[in-house]
Amino acid sequence: MRSIDVCLTPALLNLYDIEDSIVVVIDILRATSSIVYGIDNGATAIIPVAQVEDCLSYAGNGYLLAAERNGEVVEGYDFGNSPFSYTTEKVGGKTIVLTTTNGTKALQMARERAHQVVMGSFLNLGALCDWLRAQDKNVLLLCAGWKDKFNLEDTLFAGAVVAELRKDFTHIDDSSVAAEDLYECAKGDLRKYLHKSSHSHRLAQLNIEEDVKFCLQLNICQAIPVLVGDALVALKD
Amino acid sequence: MRSIDVCLTPALLNLYDIEDSIVVVIDILRATSSIVYGIDNGATAIIPVAQVEDCLSYAGNGYLLAAERNGEVVEGYDFGNSPFSYTTEKVGGKTIVLTTTNGTKALQMARERAHQVVMGSFLNLGALCDWLRAQDKNVLLLCAGWKDKFNLEDTLFAGAVVAELRKDFTHIDDSSVAAEDLYECAKGDLRKYLHKSSHSHRLAQLNIEEDVKFCLQLNICQAIPVLVGDALVALKD
Repeated sequence: MRSIDVCLTPALLNLYDIEDSIVVVIDILRATSSIVYGIDNGATAIIPVAQVEDCLSYAGNGYLLAAERNGEVVEGYDFGNSPFSYTTEKVGGKTIVLTTTNGTKALQMARERAHQVVMGSFLNLGALCDWLRAQDKNVLLLCAGWKDKFNLEDTLFAGAVVAELRKDFTHIDDSSVAAEDLYECAKGDLRKYLHKSSHSHRLAQLNIEEDVKFCLQLNICQAIPVLVGDALVALKD
Repeated sequence: MRSIDVCLTPALLNLYDIEDSIVVVIDILRATSSIVYGIDNGATAIIPVAQVEDCLSYAGNGYLLAAERNGEVVEGYDFGNSPFSYTTEKVGGKTIVLTTTNGTKALQMARERAHQVVMGSFLNLGALCDWLRAQDKNVLLLCAGWKDKFNLEDTLFAGAVVAELRKDFTHIDDSSVAAEDLYECAKGDLRKYLHKSSHSHRLAQLNIEEDVKFCLQLNICQAIPVLVGDALVALKD
């Protein structure tokens, strides 16, 4: 028996037995999208940290520092969470130290117990699903949510993964059923669907419309960032 | 501004500010369905308690004792959680002391902070929505879930309420959007939709198919059970 579960927010992660699971961390707007794009563009590693202050301990030594709180770049840092900062020109061969509002927290919680932790986004959906299908492990799709609450964009991505994988798994839970059906409702126009979201209104105020469009692109990256020690690096088959 | 929020499991309730809200507790299979049906059939009151042992302290004195754990009647009790036990003949003029797996827990958590706590089910959907619409309060729809996890049937009912009320409210959260869209997917045949649920498989093993069909009927009751002190009683306008 192989199972797919969807954990709708990090606040529910303690309810799941993940010791033998691959956990896919999902923070579509924008942490895991930027991480996937950055690793795909040749960043050596991305080190997620929990607090803005933790970034500072890495200052100097050639690290790039990225910090975002409530959707905005923290003053004095190299950049924040926008995927447009993670181009080959900026990150190729570099190591980035990153803290974000929700994504880093989910990742830190997962790493304590999971068999393996990888990053998912629409950008690497196909590559991620192909790899997950080939492993002999249960899968937990962990939505980073928004301040421990449910959010639509992370759930839609979880649903996209369920839709791809369900025929290869024997058990899916209720939240997987829900996520898949929401994705079916939304997939014709993800951007339009997210306009229904409270998060969308908040993000519109932050003027990151271009980021949102970028993060909803399917399959422009092949990289699967995997957590090794303290750092996210490209998964090698 | 009036808001509707959907809290997908009791484990997330602490994230919501409910001091000025009406909380609708939802445990479709089967606690809140049975409570609505029992109050509609003339039960004087239903007293929810957290533990099976708490029921026993009410033994004698004319109380009926109802206890269910993991979907089954606890040995030696008058009845469990099946709505067919809550007929006029059995409960008219009686007070019932009830403990259930998930519903009672959600109710106990809500009562500590909410402005008012009422019970929702498909059986009283229309009456409940009419009443909620007429109050000048925010609404939190609290899904009892299954052992603190998301479940489909409670979320579908929350979605049905959102679909009824959204034009009278100015703000709905992401989980309300999701619940409403899932209800739109499911409403043509709720029973068939729930066959997709892991809970459905579990319940099928408990042989409560007739209960499930009963609990998915719309608008056969007018009663709105409201928590007053320790007891659920019929709401008087």
